[in-house]
Amino acid sequence: MKANRIFNFNAGPAAMPLPVLEEMQASLLNYAGCGMSVMEISHRSKWFDDIINDAVARIKRLLGLGDDFTVLFLQGGASMQFCMIPMNFLPGDATADYVNTGTWSTKAIKEAEIQGKPIRVAASSEDRNFAYIPKNIEFNAGAAYVHLTSNNTIKGTQWAEFPDTAGVPIISDMSSDILSRPLDVNRFGMIYAGAQKNIGPSGVCMVIARNDLLDRIPAGLPTMLNYQTFAAKNSMFNTPPCIGVYAIQLVTKWLEETIGGLDQMDAVNRRQAGLLYDTIDGSDFYTGTADKDSRSLMNVTFRLPSEELEQTFIATALENGLGGLKGHRSVGGCRASIYNATTDEAMATLCDFMKTFERDNG
Amino acid sequence: MKANRIFNFNAGPAAMPLPVLEEMQASLLNYAGCGMSVMEISHRSKWFDDIINDAVARIKRLLGLGDDFTVLFLQGGASMQFCMIPMNFLPGDATADYVNTGTWSTKAIKEAEIQGKPIRVAASSEDRNFAYIPKNIEFNAGAAYVHLTSNNTIKGTQWAEFPDTAGVPIISDMSSDILSRPLDVNRFGMIYAGAQKNIGPSGVCMVIARNDLLDRIPAGLPTMLNYQTFAAKNSMFNTPPCIGVYAIQLVTKWLEETIGGLDQMDAVNRRQAGLLYDTIDGSDFYTGTADKDSRSLMNVTFRLPSEELEQTFIATALENGLGGLKGHRSVGGCRASIYNATTDEAMATLCDFMKTFERDNG
Repeated sequence: MKANRIFNFNAGPAAMPLPVLEEMQASLLNYAGCGMSVMEISHRSKWFDDIINDAVARIKRLLGLGDDFTVLFLQGGASMQFCMIPMNFLPGDATADYVNTGTWSTKAIKEAEIQGKPIRVAASSEDRNFAYIPKNIEFNAGAAYVHLTSNNTIKGTQWAEFPDTAGVPIISDMSSDILSRPLDVNRFGMIYAGAQKNIGPSGVCMVIARNDLLDRIPAGLPTMLNYQTFAAKNSMFNTPPCIGVYAIQLVTKWLEETIGGLDQMDAVNRRQAGLLYDTIDGSDFYTGTADKDSRSLMNVTFRLPSEELEQTFIATALENGLGGLKGHRSVGGCRASIYNATTDEAMATLCDFMKTFERDNG
Repeated sequence: MKANRIFNFNAGPAAMPLPVLEEMQASLLNYAGCGMSVMEISHRSKWFDDIINDAVARIKRLLGLGDDFTVLFLQGGASMQFCMIPMNFLPGDATADYVNTGTWSTKAIKEAEIQGKPIRVAASSEDRNFAYIPKNIEFNAGAAYVHLTSNNTIKGTQWAEFPDTAGVPIISDMSSDILSRPLDVNRFGMIYAGAQKNIGPSGVCMVIARNDLLDRIPAGLPTMLNYQTFAAKNSMFNTPPCIGVYAIQLVTKWLEETIGGLDQMDAVNRRQAGLLYDTIDGSDFYTGTADKDSRSLMNVTFRLPSEELEQTFIATALENGLGGLKGHRSVGGCRASIYNATTDEAMATLCDFMKTFERDNG
């Protein structure tokens, strides 16, 4: 690896594509010859206008978004959207269905409940520690939206296909799989994603909202908690998180120009995840924690025969230049987060290491 | 200047100290030898813990903050605090006094009013387009807080001294003069500042809150809109804007170790602003827009004899490597924002250019 970089399997903030980091580095003292850092240019300048407009255009092209969608860059992470979503999209006694597939879904549900909104948990996989994605859910056709978490970073599960919601728009937290695969965007009322896993550094949250939902937001909300505020000003009602937007521009440029689009990205992700799951399934030493039909292509969670071996595994991996393999503190075990930026070299090195470690310790 | 950088007088995002940019640049591929970018390390890692704890410690030392204050890093800018402040600190029928000294004060007042909070505008300088800081204000001794904007970026005014509030804690938006001068922090209940003027890039907002105010925040707020959420988790309830916090660490290190503290920073700022105001006052060509006793040491606003000359001035300045001298789009004219990062060389070059331009066009 260049610059003595390790193979980074952190869950987020996570590895970013090396060409993106290199271009950001080159822009840190003098952006595009303007004589200022990309962090020092005004958000009202032509330079920044070009950055944010290019980022929006690339996201629209990558996802095939029409003019009925607006792309926004907010702050506060997905966690801030948990409270803004019911505030904006559940006026009066409107109700929504939530599917609970883990830690982040649970938090989204809690924020709707704090506001006293009449939401319903339509399905949950809590009975088996969120090891699977619920099936055959009956949704309320009168709901304003169905909320779900497309990929569960902590539990290692992912919706392989999105459920039939009887025409109700889906609002989805896609923080950990945004732009990792093609989407039928017309199923969605809103998509949101903290950038720090697949599309950039922490500190910027991408929001894609369908305009008819934005049009129905009730009056009287605090200005900064109303999505219309950001939609009306191309995300620049106040100063946006400029470096984060710039990173997203570069990541989406990399996705379009180096990877070739979301079909190609999906193929890379499937191939890499396949190698890792094959390594797990081909051994009696490693055990995947998620049901096979619910497995995530982004966060691969697994256990070793003992916690002691898990600690040795994580420490030995780091000595071998493989970082971030510790499971989330709330669940333990091991986890390899293999977002878009994961290279084939990183994946091959990880699988080789796992086989060697099993041979030496199995 | 190094790397063909210009002298940058942008109002925000604004110039950052060159050594800070250089250290950030060096950390963009491999932070402290850990093999990951500073944007790729986990916020739960020892590396990031050290960054955020050092930033907090330096801010506390610089401002002389005791254990009765908590330093937080939030997102959403000062604009998000405009709605969070009344939400957190005006429970029930508690009231607050606001002083209106310009665009940002007006927005802060509006966000309290949107929530139906019984606030009072105790003083305003709107009668003369906010060209001065009000004096001899009678505050309500029963108010929960007095809100004011310490420096008015757009109008070019600044509180030289903070008013006697009859013991009521001041809550101040210090976005454009934070850490530019020493403060008697014991007068304040809360200080907040978007980083992008004096302490870092956009995307992080520093909040300094007195613990007894935090203790009285009412229950039932959305989690991400409650300051206690951030205070209880050292700003890491969810993923913080890591690169912004890192920048603040480096800026405060520069303030302590290169500048020598806030007394020294204040002396630099007074000397530089003095040179610029002397240039304005010593001419019949340039006219300052703020009352002399209300002038800002951070944002120097001035007019030329005609709008045509102003446009020529701004364009010619840029040709001479002096950028960002256009006044805010809402007021016109010229403005030089001379925050902490402004060098003596930048100031001397600006004053020389102004004298030359006057000679050639006066």
